[in-house]
Amino acid sequence: MARKFDNRPIGVFDSGIGGITVLKALRARLPHENLIYLGDTARLPYGTKSAETVTAYATQATRNLMTHDIKMAVIACNTAASVALEPLSAALDPLPVIGVVGPGAEAGVKASKNGHIAVLATEATVRGGAYLRAIHALAPQADVVQKACGLFVTLAEEGWIKGDVAEAAARRYLEPLFKGRQKPDTIVLGCTHFPVLARVIARVVGPGVKLVDSAATTARAVELALTEKGLTTNRRGKGKVRFLATDSAERFARVGGIFFGEDITAKQVELVDLLPG
Amino acid sequence: MARKFDNRPIGVFDSGIGGITVLKALRARLPHENLIYLGDTARLPYGTKSAETVTAYATQATRNLMTHDIKMAVIACNTAASVALEPLSAALDPLPVIGVVGPGAEAGVKASKNGHIAVLATEATVRGGAYLRAIHALAPQADVVQKACGLFVTLAEEGWIKGDVAEAAARRYLEPLFKGRQKPDTIVLGCTHFPVLARVIARVVGPGVKLVDSAATTARAVELALTEKGLTTNRRGKGKVRFLATDSAERFARVGGIFFGEDITAKQVELVDLLPG
Repeated sequence: MARKFDNRPIGVFDSGIGGITVLKALRARLPHENLIYLGDTARLPYGTKSAETVTAYATQATRNLMTHDIKMAVIACNTAASVALEPLSAALDPLPVIGVVGPGAEAGVKASKNGHIAVLATEATVRGGAYLRAIHALAPQADVVQKACGLFVTLAEEGWIKGDVAEAAARRYLEPLFKGRQKPDTIVLGCTHFPVLARVIARVVGPGVKLVDSAATTARAVELALTEKGLTTNRRGKGKVRFLATDSAERFARVGGIFFGEDITAKQVELVDLLPG
Repeated sequence: MARKFDNRPIGVFDSGIGGITVLKALRARLPHENLIYLGDTARLPYGTKSAETVTAYATQATRNLMTHDIKMAVIACNTAASVALEPLSAALDPLPVIGVVGPGAEAGVKASKNGHIAVLATEATVRGGAYLRAIHALAPQADVVQKACGLFVTLAEEGWIKGDVAEAAARRYLEPLFKGRQKPDTIVLGCTHFPVLARVIARVVGPGVKLVDSAATTARAVELALTEKGLTTNRRGKGKVRFLATDSAERFARVGGIFFGEDITAKQVELVDLLPG
């Protein structure tokens, strides 16, 4: 049987800019794929909003991505992947939809030896409990503690990823979780903003605690799904990356560069309108 | 000539919850007035968004308030009042519209003796420069320095209004402004979230620096406008307060209580949809 190919882009959706960490991992693992990233910067953050609003906004955003003829949607926003993956999959059917929560949970379970896992996430992700369920589906005996770390989002966006403010915030959020006798040996960074704060988090919790995020495991899950469904590109050169945002191309470029590890110029960012319904 | 009265409510608009500090000041100064507060919690914060998006969102929100037959609109959101007061006044004409920037600038100019004034605000407010213009309109010789303090918004919403995180953030934002020979003697808190951080800000900048915000001066400006236009209520009892929000009644009630100084229950908060256009 002839191998199938598909040169359409992969759509990556995030509430804002943090999902670029997932985009970066996709680019590293699948350099030939065309990627199109949409950040709903006009309405971020999602992490403080209700499940209903997050679902409505994420549906509008992924519908916009569909107009760009994507072959697969990656929900890089932990909050949207936590509370809206089912409705999004239904809305985008038959397009394959991959969220970051499953791969993130998998990374956590693989990394943990003592079965004690801490999940750091937004308020909405913690409330939704999707990480808890995903980890228990893989490791029913795991002892999971969740912690909403809202300030980490702003610290990452402010670029304050080291220094005394970030460290004091990390201490305040994390010390209570690492006080007991049976400490977590693994932290799942359950928000795309948090990997840029990994160094300060590691210093606060001390050695012997592994920090994992869903970027790399999501990229692997995407690769597997592409292969399985015959959707891999057969292009040879480096794939194109397009950026769409709902607001503030300049801010997107400036903060996005922190997450992408490469400069993004405001000219590379196209503004789009998302329509309700 | 008979004195005129008007018992319709005053509409108060904010991007979220912080504007409740202005509501509180209105309630204290005008206890008999009915007040209706709308917080656009589904799309907050406005302070990181472009002027175009802030104007579009604020117009939708104040149009919703108009459907509640208000007699006056108070723009309690510094960002909206900074970048969108003119289009809002045009959209709501002939309804009187009062923003917080003019009264805030007035409070700063009155408080300053050495003519050096620091304005702390959101990124969008600083970029718009409305405080700068409003202060210079009153005191052309004033030396004004603006500082975007994005993390203060999250700290206030997280309830971290004292302690080492808030203090480290305040030091990082403010110490550079207060290093020179000619220090500001007055800080204008140009975001409704910031008054809850007043104590920690005061400790960082030291004695001899006055902190002012626009809540009290806005309430006085509203009182003057009501009297001038014959719009004062003639009710005797305590006015009613209604809360509208675009998302998360529970979070609104919880965080709103911090700003209101009185408990708000989730049942008191009505969810509304804002329509584009």
